[in-house]
Amino acid sequence: MICVLTGGTGGAKFVDGLRQVIPPEEITLIVNTGDDLLWWGLYVSPDIDSITYVLSGLLSRERGWGVKGDTFLCLQAMGQLGEPTWFHTGDRDLAMHLLRSRLLAEGKTLSDATTMICDKLGVKARILPMSDSRVETRVDTPSGELSFEEYFVQRWYQDPVNSVRFAGASDAEPAPGVLEAILSADAVLIAPSNPITSIGPILSVPGVREALRGARGKVAAVSPIVGNAAVAGPAGILMTAQGLPCSIAGVAKAYEDFLDLLICDTRDARAADALRANGLRVQCAQTIMRSAEDKTALARTVLSYALGGLLADEPNSEKPLSGLPAVPAAADQP
Amino acid sequence: MICVLTGGTGGAKFVDGLRQVIPPEEITLIVNTGDDLLWWGLYVSPDIDSITYVLSGLLSRERGWGVKGDTFLCLQAMGQLGEPTWFHTGDRDLAMHLLRSRLLAEGKTLSDATTMICDKLGVKARILPMSDSRVETRVDTPSGELSFEEYFVQRWYQDPVNSVRFAGASDAEPAPGVLEAILSADAVLIAPSNPITSIGPILSVPGVREALRGARGKVAAVSPIVGNAAVAGPAGILMTAQGLPCSIAGVAKAYEDFLDLLICDTRDARAADALRANGLRVQCAQTIMRSAEDKTALARTVLSYALGGLLADEPNSEKPLSGLPAVPAAADQP
Repeated sequence: MICVLTGGTGGAKFVDGLRQVIPPEEITLIVNTGDDLLWWGLYVSPDIDSITYVLSGLLSRERGWGVKGDTFLCLQAMGQLGEPTWFHTGDRDLAMHLLRSRLLAEGKTLSDATTMICDKLGVKARILPMSDSRVETRVDTPSGELSFEEYFVQRWYQDPVNSVRFAGASDAEPAPGVLEAILSADAVLIAPSNPITSIGPILSVPGVREALRGARGKVAAVSPIVGNAAVAGPAGILMTAQGLPCSIAGVAKAYEDFLDLLICDTRDARAADALRANGLRVQCAQTIMRSAEDKTALARTVLSYALGGLLADEPNSEKPLSGLPAVPAAADQP
Repeated sequence: MICVLTGGTGGAKFVDGLRQVIPPEEITLIVNTGDDLLWWGLYVSPDIDSITYVLSGLLSRERGWGVKGDTFLCLQAMGQLGEPTWFHTGDRDLAMHLLRSRLLAEGKTLSDATTMICDKLGVKARILPMSDSRVETRVDTPSGELSFEEYFVQRWYQDPVNSVRFAGASDAEPAPGVLEAILSADAVLIAPSNPITSIGPILSVPGVREALRGARGKVAAVSPIVGNAAVAGPAGILMTAQGLPCSIAGVAKAYEDFLDLLICDTRDARAADALRANGLRVQCAQTIMRSAEDKTALARTVLSYALGGLLADEPNSEKPLSGLPAVPAAADQP
């Protein structure tokens, strides 16, 4: 069993590769819910949506979010009714939000609702929200405190950031199965997601960091930072705001209490050497995922490093271990 | 001021004519909410929707319900998620249900929500739900008691009907403005809607029948029955189930305690004579509305009879009174 901690965008790409490399039944995903929002009165969980869509073959790979081929007529009609339209929910995508909202209104937990929706969509991997309690990522800016989606989607992450906090985290509990999945996995993979606002909320849930420190398998993170910039999105800005360098050293620092292995881009070979000198295992790989082949190759490489562990003392080796099970491509696609 | 009691389908056609004949600012519509349902967790008010859409120029005249040119991709996606799809909500139409549901969840009344939505859509007529309390039309059949939409839309009104009741009616209050609109109107028009399940729920709200009996203006009803059949839908079946003949005599009987004037189809001239012999004022007109011209002509005729009252003793006269204000066509269309 492989456990993956993930956000939406970069994480979804990584998971898209992973599902080609190991049977989806062997993947448990622990997903950030710090971005969740009430939108038009519906409960939207953007990262759970992206991970559910990628595993069911419904994700729009062009946009990286939402349902492929979706239309936006309800959004347009909401605009005509004077309602906000900055968060782009497609017509097909609305079905997900409507069903989840109804299940929650009926008293189901977010975990229950997620499992029920995954069953309906034929998703065979196990998707767990980080918590069934509400933990909200709040971004403090000179214009006031914003929700993550306000900061990221509505305002295009143009505001300077003072700090980030996770409201509700101290009272939250991990969702059922989260700690067990981390503790018992053959490897725990941290997707190339934003360390502050995608992985950070998961780590803020009491018990999760302890579980990562006590995990039976190796904990391996893929860096979302190449050189001194994020591959996409505001990770760099937010790391800086939280006092971390925007580099693989910053990523290593964010995860330092539990990280066994960091996978960074081949362009960071020199920075990798510096980290190794401090005692961290670091492997370089091609981490930019442009094509389906890139995704599969990265997933295979990360898995082989995390499961094998034998290559930890071979700096800069890019050759993955063999011996991974051969699975049919897109096995999870209904 | 003209007050109209109406349901959705036949009522919407009648209102479509009426808005061409008098300025929409001079129309108050009291609308059936007995068909309202929770659909996918959203509060849907089918008759308020149809009346709102017709007055805003958004109604699909082809279907007679929903938004013109709408698509049904969310519905399709809901089906893929295993959710029911028998009630056809279009993608644009969903915006109405989302907004109304959110306003109700925030504590607004159905009246408030209706007014706010009408303002957004530029509707200048005043639309009042019959009540802000929940009054549910329940149809008793050999298969059990059904909501009206289950009986009508889901099961195509194929079940034999034992009886109809309006659950919650005895505890309901008329929505603000309903009684005042009836009492003070220059004429009260009862649209050619189903007397049992469109007008019946309105009449079941305590105080409404009394207001109709005490109305300052004439109360005129347009018969939805021609000969011994309903122009559309299950009105005939339901009238029979409620012990009324399926004829203009049955319509007259349903409204007997307050009706001043019945407008029936020219094909019912003989039945009209029989009713007149019993002392009811009856006028014949072309009541089948196939074209925009049919709708306008019927509205003009009904208004002239209801406002004039002078023709009451001229049996079978189809000549409307002159003297109605000339208004621009489609004045309410944004």
